[in-house]
Amino acid sequence: MDELRVSGAIIRRLPRYYRYLEELMHEGVERISSQELASRMRVTASQIRQDLNHFGGFGQQGYGYKVDALYEAIGKIMGIDRVTHIILVGAGHLGQALANYTNYRRRGFMIEAIFDKDPARIGTDVQGITVRDVETLEEYVAAHNVDIATITIPKEQAVLVADRLVKAGIKAIWNFAHTDLEVPKDVAVENVHLSESLMNLSYKLKEMQDSREA
Amino acid sequence: MDELRVSGAIIRRLPRYYRYLEELMHEGVERISSQELASRMRVTASQIRQDLNHFGGFGQQGYGYKVDALYEAIGKIMGIDRVTHIILVGAGHLGQALANYTNYRRRGFMIEAIFDKDPARIGTDVQGITVRDVETLEEYVAAHNVDIATITIPKEQAVLVADRLVKAGIKAIWNFAHTDLEVPKDVAVENVHLSESLMNLSYKLKEMQDSREA
Repeated sequence: MDELRVSGAIIRRLPRYYRYLEELMHEGVERISSQELASRMRVTASQIRQDLNHFGGFGQQGYGYKVDALYEAIGKIMGIDRVTHIILVGAGHLGQALANYTNYRRRGFMIEAIFDKDPARIGTDVQGITVRDVETLEEYVAAHNVDIATITIPKEQAVLVADRLVKAGIKAIWNFAHTDLEVPKDVAVENVHLSESLMNLSYKLKEMQDSREA
Repeated sequence: MDELRVSGAIIRRLPRYYRYLEELMHEGVERISSQELASRMRVTASQIRQDLNHFGGFGQQGYGYKVDALYEAIGKIMGIDRVTHIILVGAGHLGQALANYTNYRRRGFMIEAIFDKDPARIGTDVQGITVRDVETLEEYVAAHNVDIATITIPKEQAVLVADRLVKAGIKAIWNFAHTDLEVPKDVAVENVHLSESLMNLSYKLKEMQDSREA
């Protein structure tokens, strides 16, 4: 098994497998065939077999996949078999929404500090975490083990904060700001550009309307 | 120009072009060469030429692209040259974050009603919009022109609300719930699965750590 050679497309599908496997575990399902899984996930059974074969022999001919073993293996591949220490810059509504989201915690994603520059927010409590002054960001990062920094602030400030985070040694940024961050090659960035997602939906809607009218 | 034949990959890149063109307009740039645009967007000039050629002859050999014309054309292709009427189900932090996001409004995305089932939220004001009882959802949709419904509620309720929205005639859903919605083929869905995005980042981080250690 050579994880690093697996294509980006498969990797991007893994979280979805993980979510379905989690649901199966909650339902008490121990084994599932590629056909059954395919029908739940509305993909083809052959795609499932192809995808999962990359990660070793989880499926047994005639027995299907062992749900918990596959779930664990995918979690391990994605690096979520351990605690991931997260900080959050921006205690506005979006930051608070993320801090409130308990789904992460089950997966070991722990938001451990929240920063803001607004004096009205500094010192307030968000999900049991006291909001810190963003001026103390470097100090915090130096003293703690931080895996991921989440940025939920406007784009002009986001660029500056990202620079500070990189200089402080952060290697992964979850970026919600409406801009592409320029970071060194050894820093991982995952962008969530919400307005681009909304524009994509707008396009799909328009395309469907056009084809109804045609 | 046959928009419908354009591949999904190009379409998904359009919002990013749109964002960069908007920045250029703010900077007062009237024309830009594919080389300059490529260097800003950190893609190749040939990709830009290939992508934009699909939408007709915006570039003039030796003169570059006319920024405002290209911006307008892409907006039109994506269906954001008009007002898009949006409702939002779920007035929690994420719903409030979306309602607060002024970027949409500039692009004609208007959140015009917000619904929640929590009596403590119903009747409160979010960005000048009074939160309505989710029980009145169908009534509202019947009486108003609604293009997109945004769902920011937990997954169990999301499935039920999506069914109600579809029955009420909604043709586009922006889904933030941690589940895949089952909708008829003529309903467009755009998912924002935040935990999957976080897992993708976790994977990238782990991959980089592994390659550093190797």
